[in-house]
Amino acid sequence: MRHTLTILVENESGVLSRVAGLFSGRGFNIESLTVAETLEPDTSRMTIVTHGNDQIIEQIIKQLHKLINTIKVTDLTGEDFIEREMVMIKVSASEPNARAEVLRLVEVFRAKVIDVSPRSFTLELTGNESKVTAFIEMLKPMGIKDFVRTGKVVLQRGNKAAKSKE
Amino acid sequence: MRHTLTILVENESGVLSRVAGLFSGRGFNIESLTVAETLEPDTSRMTIVTHGNDQIIEQIIKQLHKLINTIKVTDLTGEDFIEREMVMIKVSASEPNARAEVLRLVEVFRAKVIDVSPRSFTLELTGNESKVTAFIEMLKPMGIKDFVRTGKVVLQRGNKAAKSKE
Repeated sequence: MRHTLTILVENESGVLSRVAGLFSGRGFNIESLTVAETLEPDTSRMTIVTHGNDQIIEQIIKQLHKLINTIKVTDLTGEDFIEREMVMIKVSASEPNARAEVLRLVEVFRAKVIDVSPRSFTLELTGNESKVTAFIEMLKPMGIKDFVRTGKVVLQRGNKAAKSKE
Repeated sequence: MRHTLTILVENESGVLSRVAGLFSGRGFNIESLTVAETLEPDTSRMTIVTHGNDQIIEQIIKQLHKLINTIKVTDLTGEDFIEREMVMIKVSASEPNARAEVLRLVEVFRAKVIDVSPRSFTLELTGNESKVTAFIEMLKPMGIKDFVRTGKVVLQRGNKAAKSKE
């Protein structure tokens, strides 16, 4: 089963390596991970998406709680949350027809053109997994020259928050 | 000096922990890191932003090249690249005036409202660091209830690409 975890950690050297080590030590692959500062500069927030056996994930979460630099661990699996990622895609577009088609897709998907060259466009899109996947599939036949995605970040819906220190 | 690295790695358990370990082993703090799959499911792409002594960064890059699962390491520092991140912010907005003010800021910054509750809005914004920082500063006085950022991702400008296996 897929699990989405939010982890608040103290912003210290070595924390990321230890967190990642807990997953790899059990042979778990991390599908995506993002870590960046919160509004408090001594605290970072990680978002981890992973697949695997529920019992082993529970063990990993217990271990995460025990790590000295962990402030809070939230398993959002089954919760009502907003999940988004951003992709940047450089797509080939030399011919006028190809350029027009890319711009049509940008409009349909509400993407943005963030760089232009005579032979390519660089596009930015945000959305959930199905929207991002659909966009990529539409662009693939045109020739994707470069590609980067942020990995998923999540927030709980409504008025709830994961940011308080507990 | 701040360094921005793009690392293509084989998508295997343990790679992230080893990469992060190279930084923490030298007492280097990672400002942000994202890792997610590329279009080839056996390959992941990491983007790491870090600060520190140039000579030590050079040593780390050499070590990264030696890691068995590393396909390519690119130090984009000083190159012409597009740098973006995405943030999701849940901001308090109960009173009609506060709600109107949030919506004005959304318009000015070309952000998006992605969730609404009677007492809050959840907003999404993409941009470079200065835009994201300005948006956060404008929202802070209203009360930020929850916050997550993806960390930065980068693509080279123009027609260049980092995706080829070398």
